Amino acid sequence: MALIVQKFGGTSVGTPERLRSVADRIARARAAGHRLVVVVSAMGHTTDELIELAQKVSQDPPRREMDMLLTAGERISMALLSMALVDRGVDALSFTGSQSGIITDESHRRARIKRILGDRVRAAIADHRVAIVAGFQGVSEKKEITTLGRGGSDTTAVALAAALGADLCEIYTDVDGVYSADPRVVPQAKLWRTISHDLMVEMATRGAGVLHPRSVEFAKRYKVPLCVRNSLNENEGTTVVTENNQETGMEDFKITGVTADSARVLVTVNLARPTVANSVCDRAAEAHLSMLALTFSGGRLQFFAEREAEMEWRKHLQDLAAHGFLESFEFHSDLVPLSVIGDRFSQDGAALSRVIETLAQCHISVTMGSTSALALTVAVPMTHADDGVKAIHARFF
Amino acid sequence: MALIVQKFGGTSVGTPERLRSVADRIARARAAGHRLVVVVSAMGHTTDELIELAQKVSQDPPRREMDMLLTAGERISMALLSMALVDRGVDALSFTGSQSGIITDESHRRARIKRILGDRVRAAIADHRVAIVAGFQGVSEKKEITTLGRGGSDTTAVALAAALGADLCEIYTDVDGVYSADPRVVPQAKLWRTISHDLMVEMATRGAGVLHPRSVEFAKRYKVPLCVRNSLNENEGTTVVTENNQETGMEDFKITGVTADSARVLVTVNLARPTVANSVCDRAAEAHLSMLALTFSGGRLQFFAEREAEMEWRKHLQDLAAHGFLESFEFHSDLVPLSVIGDRFSQDGAALSRVIETLAQCHISVTMGSTSALALTVAVPMTHADDGVKAIHARFF
Repeated sequence: MALIVQKFGGTSVGTPERLRSVADRIARARAAGHRLVVVVSAMGHTTDELIELAQKVSQDPPRREMDMLLTAGERISMALLSMALVDRGVDALSFTGSQSGIITDESHRRARIKRILGDRVRAAIADHRVAIVAGFQGVSEKKEITTLGRGGSDTTAVALAAALGADLCEIYTDVDGVYSADPRVVPQAKLWRTISHDLMVEMATRGAGVLHPRSVEFAKRYKVPLCVRNSLNENEGTTVVTENNQETGMEDFKITGVTADSARVLVTVNLARPTVANSVCDRAAEAHLSMLALTFSGGRLQFFAEREAEMEWRKHLQDLAAHGFLESFEFHSDLVPLSVIGDRFSQDGAALSRVIETLAQCHISVTMGSTSALALTVAVPMTHADDGVKAIHARFF
Repeated sequence: MALIVQKFGGTSVGTPERLRSVADRIARARAAGHRLVVVVSAMGHTTDELIELAQKVSQDPPRREMDMLLTAGERISMALLSMALVDRGVDALSFTGSQSGIITDESHRRARIKRILGDRVRAAIADHRVAIVAGFQGVSEKKEITTLGRGGSDTTAVALAAALGADLCEIYTDVDGVYSADPRVVPQAKLWRTISHDLMVEMATRGAGVLHPRSVEFAKRYKVPLCVRNSLNENEGTTVVTENNQETGMEDFKITGVTADSARVLVTVNLARPTVANSVCDRAAEAHLSMLALTFSGGRLQFFAEREAEMEWRKHLQDLAAHGFLESFEFHSDLVPLSVIGDRFSQDGAALSRVIETLAQCHISVTMGSTSALALTVAVPMTHADDGVKAIHARFF
């Protein structure tokens, strides 16, 4: 009788029909004898709709109130899922992040989980009930409602699995698993049956769209068996494993995937003097703002910021400029990151030039590039990102 | 510097535009130097939409999960209102029922407030902030989320006003106050500038639509100054007062209002023997189900139940029948209560017959009637209810 944490994303619970089909799947897992904790996101576009409402009433909504607002989303989906289960004769109880004891820091909208109490979830399982837990949300020590940021429900699921000592954490989504490229862009993209934690983090960080990077880091640190599956079929999906033992020979394929991420935007910061680069990085760390593919040379910082955090970034950078740390900064709205992820890939010194050459052949000019242990990232015009992904995939696979 | 509790209903916060106009009103009251606690309902039809969603995933949604679901509604409106206020430079903080310490009994969907802690609300006011509190919701001692039933936000507002020792509780709605009849049905209906607690309870219980009866009872018991005002204009509205000192002479007008309530339905219960009438009443009391205009004669109980509670009533009555208490029962979906409310009105022995006579003149047949100290109620066909209200209003005013 395994203890399984299942997570269903917004698309999987996007309509009453899909919600019922998720309930059917859970009922089957229950009938197979498993003990279940189910983490749900808000239905479909609920979160985006709530953000839109907020923008209609406020120019600059306070982060605390945004969290209060957004957490309504999972409250709705978890209560509905619980009802659908009871309707199928499956005893279920829903719990908010606060009721589940998901304790976070105070950083509204991008809070980090500090620990999980989980008493009521454990009691529900002990009572032979399915516990439905709101993803994405938690509560601070000061009893303020917080949210974990985009992809936060994945992190809720893995963190809960770790706290409860679950045998497996299944992340259900609307694709069959982790591909070598977005299958909507590259139809011949390869579905991986396994992928290592480290490469998965790189894929996720660079916009692969399945699994949030933090959730994979959690899974690695706490040794949570993790897999990605399609909520619409019974396929096996992709299992995240500790060692890189992808079924293809290591020498045949050094590349795991190619991604482009239009949710990020290139930022250039010209420092007043090279010694103050840390001022920008410190601000980002304090505010939990990510800096993808950071490069630093000649008094200039470049990195990819999350597009939706642009307003917040601008505030921080303006403030730093006012304090004399920066000369200027610029958001290149049209430039997005295109990344190639692979094991030992970037140890190949020629990798970056081969990528640039391939892109040049289809008239895509690269304005900056950065390599790390398991990935390289270049900036390409957003309108050419898909073409670039196709060309790179064709060249390396 | 008065402490005022203002309550805004679903229509008043139904769109981003209306929400902004409510924020303007609150900002003006704040600028006038008042300390404010604002109670909000869910936006417009949110609650009905959520109930509809529930019905799409479950035949018989558990009451606990319905409460979890429905409380998402006020969470959205209160966060939005708080944002809109901050946008206007008014420092505001929103609090859920649970965060406000609104402690209720365990009766999901019709919970009763046991006490209000209100620590965080008090702290917010002491900090010169506007506290926005979710109406309609609370939390039980077992930390389960509960809701107070239809009209619950009025009760939240008055109970909070009592707990905080507020100087005034203003209930904002989409009409100018309390009328002698629904002005949409009777355009010449009279707007009362004052009305007594006791008559207001009768009006509210019988479907006047403004103010929930329980909130008026609270206001009377805890001596909370209470008024009903229009959120769309600056009119004075109706003030609820302890003594009946309506501006018109007592001898001129003995009648306060005429109401019809299509949200109720006549129920007939034939008892197995007259001595078991209490079995039905006990069940209703336990389940917090109201029985309007209860009559009991010859082994037969008749009363008006809330239409939306019909499924629940049926379960209780079927159960009582199975235990041998009842012979049969019937829901007359077409028969709704038409009530006449007035001070010393029903002491006039001829009142019921005059009402029946007036209705008969417009071919409305009355199938049952009941009188109490301040009101009389008859059952009329739903399709003729408005005509009945018009005829009675014309006759008595």
